[in-house]
Amino acid sequence: MIYFNCDYNEGAHEKILERIVQTNWEQTEGYGGDRYCSQARKLILEQCQTENAAVHFLVGGTQANATVIAASLRTYQGVLAAQTAHINVHETGAVEAGGHKVLALPSENGKLTAEQVEEAYQAHIADDSREHIVQPKMVYISQPTELGTQYTLAELEALSAVCRKNDLFLFVDGARLGYGLTASDNDVMLPDLARLCDVFYIGGTKVGALFGEAVVISNPVLQKDFRYVIKQQGGMLAKGRLLGIQFLTLFEDNLYMEIAGYANELAEQIRAVFHQKQIPLLVENRTNQLFPILPDDVLEKLSRKYCYSYQQRIDEKHSAVRFCTSWATQKSAVEELCSDLMKVL
Amino acid sequence: MIYFNCDYNEGAHEKILERIVQTNWEQTEGYGGDRYCSQARKLILEQCQTENAAVHFLVGGTQANATVIAASLRTYQGVLAAQTAHINVHETGAVEAGGHKVLALPSENGKLTAEQVEEAYQAHIADDSREHIVQPKMVYISQPTELGTQYTLAELEALSAVCRKNDLFLFVDGARLGYGLTASDNDVMLPDLARLCDVFYIGGTKVGALFGEAVVISNPVLQKDFRYVIKQQGGMLAKGRLLGIQFLTLFEDNLYMEIAGYANELAEQIRAVFHQKQIPLLVENRTNQLFPILPDDVLEKLSRKYCYSYQQRIDEKHSAVRFCTSWATQKSAVEELCSDLMKVL
Amino acid sequence: MIYFNCDYNEGAHEKILERIVQTNWEQTEGYGGDRYCSQARKLILEQCQTENAAVHFLVGGTQANATVIAASLRTYQGVLAAQTAHINVHETGAVEAGGHKVLALPSENGKLTAEQVEEAYQAHIADDSREHIVQPKMVYISQPTELGTQYTLAELEALSAVCRKNDLFLFVDGARLGYGLTASDNDVMLPDLARLCDVFYIGGTKVGALFGEAVVISNPVLQKDFRYVIKQQGGMLAKGRLLGIQFLTLFEDNLYMEIAGYANELAEQIRAVFHQKQIPLLVENRTNQLFPILPDDVLEKLSRKYCYSYQQRIDEKHSAVRFCTSWATQKSAVEELCSDLMKVL
Amino acid sequence: MIYFNCDYNEGAHEKILERIVQTNWEQTEGYGGDRYCSQARKLILEQCQTENAAVHFLVGGTQANATVIAASLRTYQGVLAAQTAHINVHETGAVEAGGHKVLALPSENGKLTAEQVEEAYQAHIADDSREHIVQPKMVYISQPTELGTQYTLAELEALSAVCRKNDLFLFVDGARLGYGLTASDNDVMLPDLARLCDVFYIGGTKVGALFGEAVVISNPVLQKDFRYVIKQQGGMLAKGRLLGIQFLTLFEDNLYMEIAGYANELAEQIRAVFHQKQIPLLVENRTNQLFPILPDDVLEKLSRKYCYSYQQRIDEKHSAVRFCTSWATQKSAVEELCSDLMKVL
Repeated sequence: MIYFNCDYNEGAHEKILERIVQTNWEQTEGYGGDRYCSQARKLILEQCQTENAAVHFLVGGTQANATVIAASLRTYQGVLAAQTAHINVHETGAVEAGGHKVLALPSENGKLTAEQVEEAYQAHIADDSREHIVQPKMVYISQPTELGTQYTLAELEALSAVCRKNDLFLFVDGARLGYGLTASDNDVMLPDLARLCDVFYIGGTKVGALFGEAVVISNPVLQKDFRYVIKQQGGMLAKGRLLGIQFLTLFEDNLYMEIAGYANELAEQIRAVFHQKQIPLLVENRTNQLFPILPDDVLEKLSRKYCYSYQQRIDEKHSAVRFCTSWATQKSAVEELCSDLMKVL
Repeated sequence: MIYFNCDYNEGAHEKILERIVQTNWEQTEGYGGDRYCSQARKLILEQCQTENAAVHFLVGGTQANATVIAASLRTYQGVLAAQTAHINVHETGAVEAGGHKVLALPSENGKLTAEQVEEAYQAHIADDSREHIVQPKMVYISQPTELGTQYTLAELEALSAVCRKNDLFLFVDGARLGYGLTASDNDVMLPDLARLCDVFYIGGTKVGALFGEAVVISNPVLQKDFRYVIKQQGGMLAKGRLLGIQFLTLFEDNLYMEIAGYANELAEQIRAVFHQKQIPLLVENRTNQLFPILPDDVLEKLSRKYCYSYQQRIDEKHSAVRFCTSWATQKSAVEELCSDLMKVL
Repeated sequence: MIYFNCDYNEGAHEKILERIVQTNWEQTEGYGGDRYCSQARKLILEQCQTENAAVHFLVGGTQANATVIAASLRTYQGVLAAQTAHINVHETGAVEAGGHKVLALPSENGKLTAEQVEEAYQAHIADDSREHIVQPKMVYISQPTELGTQYTLAELEALSAVCRKNDLFLFVDGARLGYGLTASDNDVMLPDLARLCDVFYIGGTKVGALFGEAVVISNPVLQKDFRYVIKQQGGMLAKGRLLGIQFLTLFEDNLYMEIAGYANELAEQIRAVFHQKQIPLLVENRTNQLFPILPDDVLEKLSRKYCYSYQQRIDEKHSAVRFCTSWATQKSAVEELCSDLMKVL
Repeated sequence: MIYFNCDYNEGAHEKILERIVQTNWEQTEGYGGDRYCSQARKLILEQCQTENAAVHFLVGGTQANATVIAASLRTYQGVLAAQTAHINVHETGAVEAGGHKVLALPSENGKLTAEQVEEAYQAHIADDSREHIVQPKMVYISQPTELGTQYTLAELEALSAVCRKNDLFLFVDGARLGYGLTASDNDVMLPDLARLCDVFYIGGTKVGALFGEAVVISNPVLQKDFRYVIKQQGGMLAKGRLLGIQFLTLFEDNLYMEIAGYANELAEQIRAVFHQKQIPLLVENRTNQLFPILPDDVLEKLSRKYCYSYQQRIDEKHSAVRFCTSWATQKSAVEELCSDLMKVL
């Protein structure tokens, strides 16, 4: 069985493992107070072209989302997000467990527009009984989204402008950020994120690390006491250096961009087959996730050899499924898949 | 200015005030341990034709909803509700503050169907990664709904059957229950609610009381330790007898039904005018709330003399608004409104 | 049976009932937007000698405490309180349900000292791993305390100074404030509370009202969006005017002070008997609660005619109990109790 | 600088690193559904001599505590724990953030007694107004405790008996369990824990793993839907196999016991010096933590070369501090410390 179902089937990039092994017997301070975390923070800030942001390392995405949101909102405030957003559908209500409502807005491609946010904000402000309604205070988006689509720089700037005008926090979930940064149509770079968002994170779990997400907080209001919230949320890793070592390795020598770009290239190869065979895709995108709409009998055949993930039923005889590539995907596996797709389609 | 904007503009039915005054100097136990609460509980159980339900008196609707839901759900469980449900849009996220997600389902008329619930439940069960998703465990409906519509007995039985089959709790918010029980097309009576729901409440605030909601819990699982949750939620009234006295008065001599029926009759008079003038209504219903769709210029004229509540914009020149009658509405006020409507429409 | 067990056995002062009856048919805005609430707010601010405080009316004490604390603290912050504090022992964990730890400090007489607060704050600040510890951010005290003792003005000023120095909020629970304001040894008046605290409340439930607590927020930081929190906590009374009417009546013509002073005088009569008979008291105080330490056989005799509340076992043969007077206590009842005490002691 | 301040200064046992490296390119299911987790679960159950327990792997201790407690308690229930318990003082209120009160009981040596638990339970049950008080439902203890002390089998059996009699859950935090299991005076083995507790965990972070705690749930009531709670708490590691691989390695060939025993032996060497020099210890114990009470000037000298952690001030000239050994402590470091201690004491 060859796995294309997600982007976290393997371990970590070998340079990361090497360094973990190599530093194993060093004694370091716990909880992120070590030299590796410091160096990794410094590198990330440099690449974000900012000196004033705070960088914190967390273990996973749900934890990062819950921690950032808990640290940002007052009890009566909620977070605007696309209906398809990870926090809305795939975190077992972690945001609600922290006391906050996810204010879901409709979206076909996983993205929110500045207009939607403005409208939601104005609707709240205009309501005479707004005190009976959850107050929107944060906008949560993913780059790339759950559907592998991306915000353009213009779109992100528009969202940021609406948020700043209305005193909303803009939070970007970058669990797959590497695949976004290196997509062929991308024009949003790290300094843009640091400049336009209040807080975002750079995903490691899905891009070469064993685990880990680097949260970058630009807004000083959200920086205050953030470590208390990490600890309260159970996210403060005792041997925090493991996170430092991983991000240090990823952000030295351009490794993060390199391995993410590699995965995107492999995805393009598969995408080319779907295009050639005129297979419709749920969305058009250029990152490492593909959502072809395939006949159920074809899917059945593919499932004997390939593991993909099921997305949604389209009609009686067709389903949308997801194929992912990652930093760890073997070229040979992609070639085999492409060749088999050419045969069955 | 004459108020038709809601059903809680006045104080309480005079029989209630008389009894509060009359019993004022009696010394009673606090927190609902008094004789009036006991008598009121007994009366309500009789009228529900059950001996095994528990009855608790709370002060308001949001409090009742938050308390029942907090008492029913485990931390990872959520409550299915119509998108328009009070808990979803008008309680400042009280359910989420208690840690639970409201799983909103689309609805045009404020009602959920048994099919929708079954589908939502099956979708959860069928999902391989369901542990990443909030588990639906309760169904919340209102009788009548926020839009003044009603479930028929057949609909309620179908919902109840789906819930029991799938081990979901069925919770009926009866903030306006009186207006439902006495509507001309109603076939759902108190014993039906006690039999088909796990928990429901009988609204006093909007039907003759100064305040108060009587929560009736049929399911023994939900009865356990309920008073702890009331106290924790800040809902345990020190002078609990005030609630006992009010519900005792409402449920003696049929007062509750009588005054609710009166409000429905007044609503019918206004409804007749809208029908006669072929004014479209947002929904057809027979309870104390009316949602006519009126030209903005007509609304402007009416607003000089009448207070109604704004519901939603329909098109550039029309809006849906809400007119309510209540147990306290004056016949003369309704006559005046009808006469003015005949003129301006 | 004559009840001295608590101070909420009866209904309300008759002037309050009269006014509720008299205004019953008026149509007013809901949720505290009515003229009675406005007038009551104005009166309270005048008596607090401030123009910049916000006044909100809530139904009960646990609700007031939970609402104020939820509105004040971030998720990782806690509230310092005496071990005996109501929020620590008698609210079924309502503060914790809102996500916050009560940081309990030892106290023999129900009071905290400025030194204790300073020490707790300094201990936190000095701790290298303070991010692993709940951050103290609010000090909660009661005036009078659960044991009927009082802070002097000097003590309150010292507490306030420590709080301001360390950026802690000072919150005073005044559920029995009337009995404090009118105690013979009191030197803390309403303007002192408004000046020295960030937020406090004036209890109505135990001092002449059917129910109700008037929250006075001096600190502008805590004023922001407070009504959202009230609603979320289920504390926004639909017919808010009931609260306005009650506090308006209590704060016109000095009624609140008058009826509280009356209760204190009756308490003094009972206290005089205990003193005369050299009965030890758990604490010395001058408000409406008395905590005599009595032989169990005496208590047994008294219990046939009088209802008191049990406080704690002192030794094998003695217990401390509580006798309360209130605005509603009958002079004849006190005389009877005193006479019976003279006989049995 | 040589670190004795805690037991998580280094990375992981080399066998663990080897296996992580060796399995790096295998494709496995995420979230703990892989073969390594299965094998590790099987091994742990065997060593616990039970077939009916559930085993879940979490990343850290605070996360494990918060998750177990959130999964076990209803909203109005609390957890009894020693005042010194980790959940009470060192988790930034994670338990309270989940809505539950830690009901702290006094303890000098970090341990609770069966009598204390019985008393706390009876006090609750006996209270007429118990619905106003948090209901004790779980007992939390650590083995070994924060002070390195241990429960004997007899003590644990007594606690278990009290819990079962009163329908309380018994939860054992085993963050340092290895050091307890291998202490020279220990008589509590894994099968005892599985038999006597409802839930406990086996700490990896402090005993040879990079991170990880293995939660063993014996009580079927607590097993239900536990993975939903893990996910909601942000504790479901995407590459769950990392946890499986680590625990598999630790529980094959007795590695866990071996490396923990090694640390205890080193601690005994240091302890012998303190005994020889008649240095008082805060508590007597036989596990990997030592709490000597030392003159401040001696501490100052030691601090130039050794890192220890500060525990508490004893008097003007003495402080208690903590020295820890671990699986990773070098024999030479211990010898150097012992030799230096012999000189300065």
